[in-house]
Amino acid sequence: MRIFRIAIAGFGGVGRATANLLLSRRGRYRQVYGADVRLVAVCGSRSGLADAGGLEADRLSALTTGLSGADFVEASGADILIEAGPSDFRTGGPGLAYIRSALSAGHDTIVISKGALVHSGKQLRELAQGSGAMLKLSGAAAAALPTIDLIEHSLKGCEVLEIEGILNATTNYLLDAMTTKGLGFDAALHEAQQGGFAEADPSNDTEGWDTASKLLIIANFGLGADLTMVDLSVEGIQSVTGERIRTWRAEGVVPKLVGSLARVEGTFRGGVGIRTYPLTDPFANVRGKNKAIRITTDVMGETLAIGSGAEPLATAAAALKDLEHILAARITAPIQISERSS
Amino acid sequence: MRIFRIAIAGFGGVGRATANLLLSRRGRYRQVYGADVRLVAVCGSRSGLADAGGLEADRLSALTTGLSGADFVEASGADILIEAGPSDFRTGGPGLAYIRSALSAGHDTIVISKGALVHSGKQLRELAQGSGAMLKLSGAAAAALPTIDLIEHSLKGCEVLEIEGILNATTNYLLDAMTTKGLGFDAALHEAQQGGFAEADPSNDTEGWDTASKLLIIANFGLGADLTMVDLSVEGIQSVTGERIRTWRAEGVVPKLVGSLARVEGTFRGGVGIRTYPLTDPFANVRGKNKAIRITTDVMGETLAIGSGAEPLATAAAALKDLEHILAARITAPIQISERSS
Repeated sequence: MRIFRIAIAGFGGVGRATANLLLSRRGRYRQVYGADVRLVAVCGSRSGLADAGGLEADRLSALTTGLSGADFVEASGADILIEAGPSDFRTGGPGLAYIRSALSAGHDTIVISKGALVHSGKQLRELAQGSGAMLKLSGAAAAALPTIDLIEHSLKGCEVLEIEGILNATTNYLLDAMTTKGLGFDAALHEAQQGGFAEADPSNDTEGWDTASKLLIIANFGLGADLTMVDLSVEGIQSVTGERIRTWRAEGVVPKLVGSLARVEGTFRGGVGIRTYPLTDPFANVRGKNKAIRITTDVMGETLAIGSGAEPLATAAAALKDLEHILAARITAPIQISERSS
Repeated sequence: MRIFRIAIAGFGGVGRATANLLLSRRGRYRQVYGADVRLVAVCGSRSGLADAGGLEADRLSALTTGLSGADFVEASGADILIEAGPSDFRTGGPGLAYIRSALSAGHDTIVISKGALVHSGKQLRELAQGSGAMLKLSGAAAAALPTIDLIEHSLKGCEVLEIEGILNATTNYLLDAMTTKGLGFDAALHEAQQGGFAEADPSNDTEGWDTASKLLIIANFGLGADLTMVDLSVEGIQSVTGERIRTWRAEGVVPKLVGSLARVEGTFRGGVGIRTYPLTDPFANVRGKNKAIRITTDVMGETLAIGSGAEPLATAAAALKDLEHILAARITAPIQISERSS
């Protein structure tokens, strides 16, 4: 039985959820892929743990200070990296060093945080191509909502003409609350923060940068584009007043913060901003923290997906979907159909 | 450059659309997969045409009587079969013999019609496993709407708990027209038939059998179930009165003919019948000839997809998506990311 050694860099809520889900699925990996999957290292920014024999769940609550960094992960003998650190598209975030190191060494890499992909996507793609490593990023491209999956698998062969997506859960939650209660931005944000539905500094979400980051990742990794943040016009929801909300309600339309891409003369142009939808549009009924994408192609018309997984579990599941695609590609043995569904 | 020889059996609207789309994409197959894809044979129930060097579009309007049947296709030297004949789940339809012959010979097979898959799905799956042939069926499982795709690729690793789908375009069109205009079934059907939106004998659609067929294919090929038609309770829309429609409207709900599956004690139970949805449910806004599926899993919550491709092109595109998955699997050369999107 072939052994796959996994390291998880970034060990907050998503990293921990990924570790626990991975450990709970070891029986499945054995049965479906004939793979012995071991978690050999985890680390946060300042502490970690490694064991070449494999870590069990009960050991993950006590990390050792000082065990962290790309060299620590490399020394653990891991052959697959899952990167789940905090995201910063302006610097690439702490994930960038881990991802660079893994891809350079030819290790398949699953990226959950968006920062490094937005900051250095082209370089990372080239590193992967150069070393033969697989670079997977479902968790970064809207997590449980299928986006690049749809383009690359379900719509394979079609030419994508246009994409629009409700890609950020926090802004959708806020706009939904504003619409339902007729509130302005500040009042809705205050409520959401008190309820734990928005961060203390929500600007990455509310100013549209998180949506823009996902849009760039979809464009560059799913559509072969080569866009950077400066190519996008990015507008958030922070200037939406209660009066504007009430006007939209009176008009029978629902506002959404939408990232959009359109094919123009062989390349993609895009932006982030508010669009409004009539109540008969499925986008109008994407409620709360749900997300959605609509992809228009040349021969399959419009394909729309709506995702509603609860975090951090849904993001962990997206990363481990990537892991199964890696296992399937790296193992040559055929898979029994009857086992795939179990 | 590796040559792939394609035969299309069943040459009505969908078969012809598939042929033309395939011929128009030969440049793409060369560029992305390094594959020289040739259409070497086509046939309907009584006539056909074959040329080992490859058929061009202008030759497809004049078929030769007598060139038809599984032996004709086998003699053409085709190594991939696309089956696009009429569907009959009670007998397996004319496609069954073509599919059996191709799979027995180890030829990868793309099935568009549902009949053979419902009638002899288990046998066909075993034939494919025995010979090492790939059996693909996106065109049969709701065509442009991703269904098995979502389960096998986008939700990989998740346990599917429940599925509900608006899987038949004609009944959705009829229910939509009845709801919009307050008509009973007979009046709506008469209007739809006059407009060309329903067949002269619509019973396969209106009595729920088409929905049931797609549901069985999704269950058996996507979820590893082993259901037959007698395991499903199947109800259609033929008894829906104008009065019932008006009652639903007054209650603010929208009726849909839905195929549903639920995991019960490790296996799947299912049925076809009318369910009603509030206007805030995306299912309520699946209009006209669109289709939709909602898949509930253990760790990714609900994933919903809505498809709206125009026929027969969208079904042809679904079959050729299967072809690209076959090409990708059969060709070992790596694919350039920048080419995938072109």
